[in-house]
Amino acid sequence: MKKGKWNAITDVPNVKVGHVTLDEELPNEGAIRTGVTAILPHAGNLFEQKVPAASFILNGFGKTVGLIQVDELGVLESPIMLTNTFSVAQVLQGTLDYMLAQNKTIADTTSSLNIVVGECNDSYLNSMREMKVQAHHAIEAIQLAATGPVEQGAIGAGKGMICYEVKGGIGSSSRLVAHESTTYTVGVLTLTNFGKSSECKINDWLQSNGFDQYEATFPTKEEVEKPDGSVIIIVATDAPVNERQLKRFAKRSAIGLGRTGTSVHNGSGDIIIAFSNGYTIPHSADDMTISPALLRDEHPIMNDLFKAVVEATEEAVYQSLLHAETTTGRDGRVIEKCILEKK
Amino acid sequence: MKKGKWNAITDVPNVKVGHVTLDEELPNEGAIRTGVTAILPHAGNLFEQKVPAASFILNGFGKTVGLIQVDELGVLESPIMLTNTFSVAQVLQGTLDYMLAQNKTIADTTSSLNIVVGECNDSYLNSMREMKVQAHHAIEAIQLAATGPVEQGAIGAGKGMICYEVKGGIGSSSRLVAHESTTYTVGVLTLTNFGKSSECKINDWLQSNGFDQYEATFPTKEEVEKPDGSVIIIVATDAPVNERQLKRFAKRSAIGLGRTGTSVHNGSGDIIIAFSNGYTIPHSADDMTISPALLRDEHPIMNDLFKAVVEATEEAVYQSLLHAETTTGRDGRVIEKCILEKK
Amino acid sequence: MKKGKWNAITDVPNVKVGHVTLDEELPNEGAIRTGVTAILPHAGNLFEQKVPAASFILNGFGKTVGLIQVDELGVLESPIMLTNTFSVAQVLQGTLDYMLAQNKTIADTTSSLNIVVGECNDSYLNSMREMKVQAHHAIEAIQLAATGPVEQGAIGAGKGMICYEVKGGIGSSSRLVAHESTTYTVGVLTLTNFGKSSECKINDWLQSNGFDQYEATFPTKEEVEKPDGSVIIIVATDAPVNERQLKRFAKRSAIGLGRTGTSVHNGSGDIIIAFSNGYTIPHSADDMTISPALLRDEHPIMNDLFKAVVEATEEAVYQSLLHAETTTGRDGRVIEKCILEKK
Amino acid sequence: MKKGKWNAITDVPNVKVGHVTLDEELPNEGAIRTGVTAILPHAGNLFEQKVPAASFILNGFGKTVGLIQVDELGVLESPIMLTNTFSVAQVLQGTLDYMLAQNKTIADTTSSLNIVVGECNDSYLNSMREMKVQAHHAIEAIQLAATGPVEQGAIGAGKGMICYEVKGGIGSSSRLVAHESTTYTVGVLTLTNFGKSSECKINDWLQSNGFDQYEATFPTKEEVEKPDGSVIIIVATDAPVNERQLKRFAKRSAIGLGRTGTSVHNGSGDIIIAFSNGYTIPHSADDMTISPALLRDEHPIMNDLFKAVVEATEEAVYQSLLHAETTTGRDGRVIEKCILEKK
Repeated sequence: MKKGKWNAITDVPNVKVGHVTLDEELPNEGAIRTGVTAILPHAGNLFEQKVPAASFILNGFGKTVGLIQVDELGVLESPIMLTNTFSVAQVLQGTLDYMLAQNKTIADTTSSLNIVVGECNDSYLNSMREMKVQAHHAIEAIQLAATGPVEQGAIGAGKGMICYEVKGGIGSSSRLVAHESTTYTVGVLTLTNFGKSSECKINDWLQSNGFDQYEATFPTKEEVEKPDGSVIIIVATDAPVNERQLKRFAKRSAIGLGRTGTSVHNGSGDIIIAFSNGYTIPHSADDMTISPALLRDEHPIMNDLFKAVVEATEEAVYQSLLHAETTTGRDGRVIEKCILEKK
Repeated sequence: MKKGKWNAITDVPNVKVGHVTLDEELPNEGAIRTGVTAILPHAGNLFEQKVPAASFILNGFGKTVGLIQVDELGVLESPIMLTNTFSVAQVLQGTLDYMLAQNKTIADTTSSLNIVVGECNDSYLNSMREMKVQAHHAIEAIQLAATGPVEQGAIGAGKGMICYEVKGGIGSSSRLVAHESTTYTVGVLTLTNFGKSSECKINDWLQSNGFDQYEATFPTKEEVEKPDGSVIIIVATDAPVNERQLKRFAKRSAIGLGRTGTSVHNGSGDIIIAFSNGYTIPHSADDMTISPALLRDEHPIMNDLFKAVVEATEEAVYQSLLHAETTTGRDGRVIEKCILEKK
Repeated sequence: MKKGKWNAITDVPNVKVGHVTLDEELPNEGAIRTGVTAILPHAGNLFEQKVPAASFILNGFGKTVGLIQVDELGVLESPIMLTNTFSVAQVLQGTLDYMLAQNKTIADTTSSLNIVVGECNDSYLNSMREMKVQAHHAIEAIQLAATGPVEQGAIGAGKGMICYEVKGGIGSSSRLVAHESTTYTVGVLTLTNFGKSSECKINDWLQSNGFDQYEATFPTKEEVEKPDGSVIIIVATDAPVNERQLKRFAKRSAIGLGRTGTSVHNGSGDIIIAFSNGYTIPHSADDMTISPALLRDEHPIMNDLFKAVVEATEEAVYQSLLHAETTTGRDGRVIEKCILEKK
Repeated sequence: MKKGKWNAITDVPNVKVGHVTLDEELPNEGAIRTGVTAILPHAGNLFEQKVPAASFILNGFGKTVGLIQVDELGVLESPIMLTNTFSVAQVLQGTLDYMLAQNKTIADTTSSLNIVVGECNDSYLNSMREMKVQAHHAIEAIQLAATGPVEQGAIGAGKGMICYEVKGGIGSSSRLVAHESTTYTVGVLTLTNFGKSSECKINDWLQSNGFDQYEATFPTKEEVEKPDGSVIIIVATDAPVNERQLKRFAKRSAIGLGRTGTSVHNGSGDIIIAFSNGYTIPHSADDMTISPALLRDEHPIMNDLFKAVVEATEEAVYQSLLHAETTTGRDGRVIEKCILEKK
C-alpha cells in the first residue's frame, strides 16, 4: 500500500504532533530522560468540535486516563497526551489548564472535560521517581504541535523508552487507501517501550518491504532486569467511520503490533486509541440530530482500511527503532540503538 | 437484612475512610466547597498486599482513573480516592507521592503503580475551575483514614455535591450476610451528585424500611441549570470472591442505585468499583501459585450477597441525603438539605 | 410519561409480535406449557434492511444466540425469537429456514445470516426435556406476527414462565417522548421468569402510578425449589439512535428491571436487546456511505428517552404478571396468578 | 519452545478431539463437504466437573453459541463443537441430546445447560443451504473423540473450509512450558477459513522455524468471489489459570493468528475460546468454597505461557494448510492445497 507524504500520522490532514523533551543530569547518577508528546486530532477547538474515537485494550497493565468517557460517548474532546507513568498527573493537569483557558465556559454551567493521557514506564533510563515533568510541559507540547514531518525516536515521551531491548520511543507511519476518486489516509503513531530482542521480527519486515539489502542487529546486552514495558498506539484516519468502526481499527492495530514479534507480556500496558477527523461532532448545536456520511462496513474499502491499520502500525513500531539514538540514562545505563547495516 | 455496627463501609473489617474538606470563600463571590475522600481496602501495605477488585461502568460520562489495570489484573493496589472532576490530577499526584514514599523500590527495578481516583462535578456550588485541591490534601485524607463510624453528607469529596436537587455527598451503609457459622459483610460508600427531585423514591424506601412515620421533602427550587451530575460507588466485602464475582457485585450495585429513582442521565458518570479484602494477593512471592478459598457461584449465599449489595447501595444513596447539611456555595447559590419530618 | 395506543412494543411503528403456544398433556403427568414468540423490527425484508441494535448482559447465565455479531456490526438482520432454554436449536433452525426461503441468495455467494434467539427456563411447569417445540413453530410465530395489540401473559414463549413466584410470561408497555413537533416511541417487551415474591415491588408501583385503589397479592406458596429463572427484554424505538446509544438504552432497561425488586440472582440470564427502526442499513448498496440523521447525545430528549426506557421496562414486567393466568403444569404443579384486588 | 508429543491440542492431558465428516454428491452439481468436530476438555462428566474458560472476540462477524454464559460464570460445561454456519442449530441440538442423556437430572429441578458451538462458512465448496448435518452427527463426533494424534486438514468441521485461498480446515499445535520441575502444556486447535493468499506469511514462518529448505506456493486462482471467511480457535492448557487469565491467553492467540498474515477482514468471525483443565469446578458441592491453586500473573512462567499461546496458534493455522488435501466441491469448484516443496 502507498504511504503518505511524511509516512507519519500527520499525513492525515490536520493532525498535529508536538514534543517536549526533558534531558537533564541529576546528582548521584540520576538522569532525566523523558518528555511529553501531544497528538491533536484537528486544527480547531477540540472541545467544541469533537471527533469520533474508540479504544482497544490489548493488555491493560497501564495507567491511561480518559478512556471510560471515550467508550461511553464515542468521542474525543482533547489532545491525546503521552508521557511517562509517573507524570500522568502533571500532564493531565497541564492539559486541563490549557483546555480551560481556551474554553472559558466549561464548568461554569453544565460541562466537564475529558482528557486522554497515555503512558509508558521509562524508569530504566529515566529517574522517573523524580517526576520532573510539570504541567507547563504538557501545555508546551500542545502549543508546539504541528502538521508536517514528525520527529521520531528518542524524543518527547519517547526520550527514555526501550523497545525490543534497544532504544525505542516515538515511531510513525501512514498508508493511503483509494477507491475510485476517493483517497483516505490512515496514520499511526506509537510510543514503544516493550519486548525482548529475541522476539523482534524487524529483519523479516525489512526483507519483505523492499529493504532486503539491510539487516538490523540488536547490540544491547544489559544484565539488569527491565520492566515488561508498554506501548501506546494512536491510530488516526480521515475516513468517515464511527466509534464502533474505530474500535475495529484499534483491534487491527493490535494485530499489526503483534506482527513485530511481541507476545504481549504480562506487565505491558498495550493500549490503542483510534480516532477519525473525517467529520466532527459539535459540542453545542441547536439541531436534534447530526448526519455524518459513514462508511458502510460491507464496502470493500473497509478491508483495505483494516489492512492499512495493520501495516502502518507494524511499520510505526519499526520506525521508532530506526529513528532512535543510543541513549545513556541514570546510573550510567546505556541503551544502544538498533543498528541497520547493509548486508 | 441486618446492618453492621456502623451501617457503613467500615463494617467490613479493616476498611478505612478518611476525609479532607475544603471550605473557603473567594473574591467575587467565589467559594471553595470541595474535598477529598480516601477509602483504604485494608490496614496493611496496599501495594504489597493487593485486593481482588472489579468495576462496572453504568454510564461512562466520567473521568475515573485507574480502572484499565484493575480490569486486566483483577486487583487494586492503592487507596480509592474521590474528589471533584478538575482535581483528579492533584489527587492522583498526592496519592502517588504517598505510595512511593511508602514503597521505596517501586520503579527502581520493574514495578509501576496503579492508582484509582473517582470524581464528580461539584461546579454548581464549588468554584471548581480554581482547582484548590492540592496533592497534599490527598495524602492527608489517606493519613486520616480510620475504621469506625464514617462521617457522611457534605464532607470530604462530598462537600459540594448535589443529589436529587438537594444536598448530597457521602453516604454509606452495610449489610451482614450469614450462612451457618459464617458471617460476611457488604459495605457501600457512595459519592452522590445526580438526579432530579421528581425522580427520587426516598419516601417509598422510608415506607418499606421501618421509617413509615417519616416523610422527606425536597425544598430546593433553583432555576439555574445544573449538570447531570454523577455518582461513584464503592462496594467492599470480606466475602472471599474473585474479580469476576466482584463485577457481578458491581452490576447489582447499579440495580440498587436505580432503585433510588434515577434513570441514569446522559451526562452522569455512574461508576462502581467493588473489592474484597477477604484475601489478598501478594505483590512479591516465591510461590508460583496462590490458593485463596473462593465462594462458589452456585452456593445460596451468593444470592444473599447480591441482595446485600443492592440494599446497601440503595440505602447509602439515601444516607448521603439524610446526613447532608444545607450548603451555600459560589455566587450565593444555596442547595438545601432534604427535610425529614414526622408525618 | 404518556403511553402509546396499545401500551405495547407495537406502538413503535411497524414493529410486529407473533406467538405460537404449545399446550399439551403428556403421559406420566408430563405437560407441555411452552411456545415461541417472534418480534419483527419492521415490516420489510429484515435481512435486506437491517436495523441498528445493541445488547446489554445484566447477568449472563443464559443461552441467547446471536449477540456476538450484533455487537460487532451494530445491526440486527433477523426477527428476535424467544422460547424455552432447550428449544433454542429448533427455533434457530426454523428462523434460518424462514429467512433462507425469503432470501434466496444468502450463502450462494458471500453472505451468511445472523439470527437472535433468547430463552428462559420454563422447566418447572413445562416438560422441557421433551423438546416439543419444532422448527415450524418458529416459522409460524414469524408468520403470525402483527402490529396492533400484543397478547400478554401465559402465551407464546411466556406460556410456562414464572415471575416473582406467580405466573409471568410476556409483558409489554410503551412510552411516548415528544420534543417540539417530533414524537418518538419507546416500546418494551419482556419474557419474565425470575424473582422471589418477597422482592416484588408491584404494590409500590401501583401506588405511584394511579392504581392506588388496587393491591396485588401473591398466592403461590409452593415448596418445590424453582430455578433462579431469567428475563429477556426487548427494547424498541423509532428514535434515530445508533448502536452505541442503543447500548445505553439497554443499560437503562436494566435499571427499570431492577425497580421491580429483583437483585438479579446468580442463575438468572438477564439479557436486554435494543433496536431502533428509525432508519435502516441496507445489506446491498452501491454507495460507499450512509448518512442517517442521528440524535445527539447532548440533546435533552436523550434523557427523556432514557426515562421512557426505564418506565416502560418496569411496567412491562408488571404487565406480564397482570395478564397471566393461573397455570397447571407437569406433575400437577400449579402456579397461581398474581391477584389484583381493590383495597 | 518445545512441542508436545503429537504437536496437537491433545498434548494437553485428557483433552479429546473427534471428527465426523460429510462427503456426498448432490444432484445439480451440489456437493456436501462439511462436518462436525468436537473438543472435549477432559475425560470425565463435563457438566459435573466444569473447567475455567473465557473467550475473546477479535472480530464478531460470527454465530458462535454459548459464550455469554462462559463470560459470566467463567466456566465451560460442555464439549466445544465446531461446524458450518448453517448447522449450528443441529449441532446444538445433538450436543444437548447427548448431554441430557448423560445427565438425567438437568432441568428436572434447577439446572440448565450451556453448550458452545462455533462455526465457519464453508458455502464456497459445500452446499451449505442443504443443511445435511444432523443432530446425530454431533453426538457421533463427541463419541469418537479421543486423546492422541489429531486428524487435521479437510476433515470434520474443516472438510469444506478455505484458508488463504487454498484448502484449510483443522490445524493443531502445542507447546510445552517448563519451570523448575513443573511442565505445563498449551495446545491449540483451529478451524481455518479466512484470508487472501497474498497475505499469508507461511514462507517467513518456514524460514524461521527450521523448515528453510521448503517453500510453500498457493496454486488456487479462482475468479469466483469468496466470503471473507472466519476462524475459530480453541486454546487449551493444563496450567492452573482462572477465567481472567484465560481471556489474556485468548488475546495472545489473536496475536498468533495475526502473525500468519490476515488483517482480520470485515466478514470474518474470528473467535477464540480458551480453557484450562488444570483444575475443575464441581457443579454440585457441599462446601461453600473451592481453593484451586492459581498461577500468579507476576510469575515469569506467565510470559512463557503467553508466548506458547502465540506460537501454537500461529503454527496451528499453518498446520491446517499443510495437512489439507485439494478438494472439489459444489458446482465443480476446486480448492487446491498449498504446495510445500523443497527449494
